Amino acid sequence: MHRVVILGGGFGGLYAARALRHEALSVTLVDRRNFHLFQPLLYQVATGALAATEIATPLRVVLRKQKNTQVLMADAVDLDAAGHHLILDEGAIPYDTLIVGTGARNTYFGNDSWEAIAPGLKSLEDATRIRHKILYAFEAAEREPDPQRRRQWLTFVVVGAGATGVELAGAMAEIVRDTVHSDFRSIRRDDARILLLDSSPRVLNTFPESLSEAAERQLVRLGVTLRLKVRVTEVDPEGATFSTDGGTERIECRTVLWAAGVRPSEWSDILAERAGAARDRSGRIKVNPDLTIPGHPEIFVVGDMAYLEQDGAPLVGVAPVAMQEGRYAATVIKDRLRGRSSKPFRYFDKGNLAVIGRNAGVGVIAGVKVKGRIAWFVWLFIHLMYLADALNRLLVFVRWGYQYLTYYRGARVITGPPG
Amino acid sequence: MHRVVILGGGFGGLYAARALRHEALSVTLVDRRNFHLFQPLLYQVATGALAATEIATPLRVVLRKQKNTQVLMADAVDLDAAGHHLILDEGAIPYDTLIVGTGARNTYFGNDSWEAIAPGLKSLEDATRIRHKILYAFEAAEREPDPQRRRQWLTFVVVGAGATGVELAGAMAEIVRDTVHSDFRSIRRDDARILLLDSSPRVLNTFPESLSEAAERQLVRLGVTLRLKVRVTEVDPEGATFSTDGGTERIECRTVLWAAGVRPSEWSDILAERAGAARDRSGRIKVNPDLTIPGHPEIFVVGDMAYLEQDGAPLVGVAPVAMQEGRYAATVIKDRLRGRSSKPFRYFDKGNLAVIGRNAGVGVIAGVKVKGRIAWFVWLFIHLMYLADALNRLLVFVRWGYQYLTYYRGARVITGPPG
Repeated sequence: MHRVVILGGGFGGLYAARALRHEALSVTLVDRRNFHLFQPLLYQVATGALAATEIATPLRVVLRKQKNTQVLMADAVDLDAAGHHLILDEGAIPYDTLIVGTGARNTYFGNDSWEAIAPGLKSLEDATRIRHKILYAFEAAEREPDPQRRRQWLTFVVVGAGATGVELAGAMAEIVRDTVHSDFRSIRRDDARILLLDSSPRVLNTFPESLSEAAERQLVRLGVTLRLKVRVTEVDPEGATFSTDGGTERIECRTVLWAAGVRPSEWSDILAERAGAARDRSGRIKVNPDLTIPGHPEIFVVGDMAYLEQDGAPLVGVAPVAMQEGRYAATVIKDRLRGRSSKPFRYFDKGNLAVIGRNAGVGVIAGVKVKGRIAWFVWLFIHLMYLADALNRLLVFVRWGYQYLTYYRGARVITGPPG
Repeated sequence: MHRVVILGGGFGGLYAARALRHEALSVTLVDRRNFHLFQPLLYQVATGALAATEIATPLRVVLRKQKNTQVLMADAVDLDAAGHHLILDEGAIPYDTLIVGTGARNTYFGNDSWEAIAPGLKSLEDATRIRHKILYAFEAAEREPDPQRRRQWLTFVVVGAGATGVELAGAMAEIVRDTVHSDFRSIRRDDARILLLDSSPRVLNTFPESLSEAAERQLVRLGVTLRLKVRVTEVDPEGATFSTDGGTERIECRTVLWAAGVRPSEWSDILAERAGAARDRSGRIKVNPDLTIPGHPEIFVVGDMAYLEQDGAPLVGVAPVAMQEGRYAATVIKDRLRGRSSKPFRYFDKGNLAVIGRNAGVGVIAGVKVKGRIAWFVWLFIHLMYLADALNRLLVFVRWGYQYLTYYRGARVITGPPG
């Protein structure tokens, strides 16, 4: 029986596995975690709106009824491309077809030491760490008698104004607006500042310009300070320094969050070395129009790690691209089993949305620009629908409904090691 | 204005703070965590039935409308009993009355090295660690080709058959029964063993004997192996050794959970040293009938750390005792402000319940013994009602309802550092 091994249980890997459920082949899904993570809602965990488990579903549960599929929680450390074996930390598994969807991780553009100070947002642990950092800052400020140091605790810098940065900054502004007055006794709402930095001249620069402008207005209305066309040059525990048109500037702050960029997982190196894959400047694997690696028709790369151009521009690293690529890889495998040829992959862009806060957001849906309440509502609906299991859909629905009615963020709990 | 400082936001401290809400005095609640933890449901987090944040409520949220009260997240490290100051890691706060409710922690009876192998269940981090350990064992077993090592991964030992141990063992037996068959491909239900150990001749030995027998029958029906009248003599990463009537016995296992005992927090030492408090054998502070320390009418001790006898027997460390003690301390403070004398504290025992699994449990409610479905149902209802905030009540209700209908435990997510 044809053996398909899928590495990574993100959107790409999981959608590939699901699309193979009726086939007469054996599927093995390998992930170092035991769950599928719904990354688009990570920032809500980081800002205390959702619980960590509500955006994570055990891979075994999603695939439990799929009898041709086994889930293995294991660390895949190497590849024997000639011998068709995936090397795990303990043992190796043979494959006839391999699908690699190991995604991306944070990048600090050579300043790796900043990671300890300015966490990015890629994993549940990152989200818990950021939540710890944000909530602890308010607690420390409440306790701090010195006004200058208190302001430092209450200054939050978000680096990177893509969707994640915009969503983080908006949610933090809402925390300040909705909870400082009622929950704290010493600190005042005006003591808090949220700065959103980007080197680009506008926020959400993959969106149409008119939507970037709408998003900027909505952010400013929420109390976010935008600092565009600036470049961060230093991050330390007491603040951040950045260069502007006019020179350099320093912000005294205790919390810097990093949403400025990602790079492919370490499997980019493994595929380059073991399978001779070529890469783009950021390390993504250049794939054929059928998502395989040149010279290795049996190895597919899907999701954030794959580099493919469509209509002259590279596809971006978002969940819908990964889902469609995963499903496409499964289709090619099915076609091959039936001796049919496959059409090249083509991403169908249903739209793109970013939420800023309650009743606030921007996006393009099926080519139509939307903003404000309608963008926000469609965003909520789509994210709820795409959650991988019914219980989490129900729980997230309850949380969002409750929060809408009461302005209460329930998961504001400081756990785990300090950020 | 009279200054009340409350140390600890558990059941004792929180109920004291709440009972002072209408008084013309200032209340400061100090806790090193920012939340009140509903400890009776911790085992459900440890076994993947609930999310961590669902049993934790930010103290600020519970007390947000109480204008005479400030919450401080801080570490209280010492006491200046003569000068009436609570010493924090940064600074000190003056008090006229101090209420100490810092609770209990795990004890390994002199074998502290076992803690790294056999976690106890007192904090959210403990619960996450235990969940990690349990879930990871199933994942490792699924991957393990050697049958003997696989059995070792699937052997779970719970030390201590009080309420926590019984509840943990029952929940683990349900995980085996409800999920192994559907979610895994290599392991079989019969490969798993759950052993519940206790030195006493019966489980739940604070309950009437007939209820212990009922609990034992229910545990055995769920597949739990009881080993009573045994004493653990060694715990290591590969197994546990215990002495029986006949000699010693060894169990090969990868997971040992500790529910065998607690001792008071480090504030027991501080109160003994700084305020001359006397202690019982286990380190609990011996208090006057009004819960103050002899010689210090301005210091109350409430909850698991207080030692007080009633009708010839010491009060046990359960949530209802702590709640009533906290409320009583507030009453004494109010009486003093009004120049009234107070009646000595008296615990009103409404009942005691332990749940074993779906439709299974035992307990005494208002003097009437109950078991099976009715005990289970009353337990669910009471725990739901006592959760500190409405959103968590709603979420836990949704989870329990969903789990009852589908047998699905949604929070089976392996996060955080390995156990």
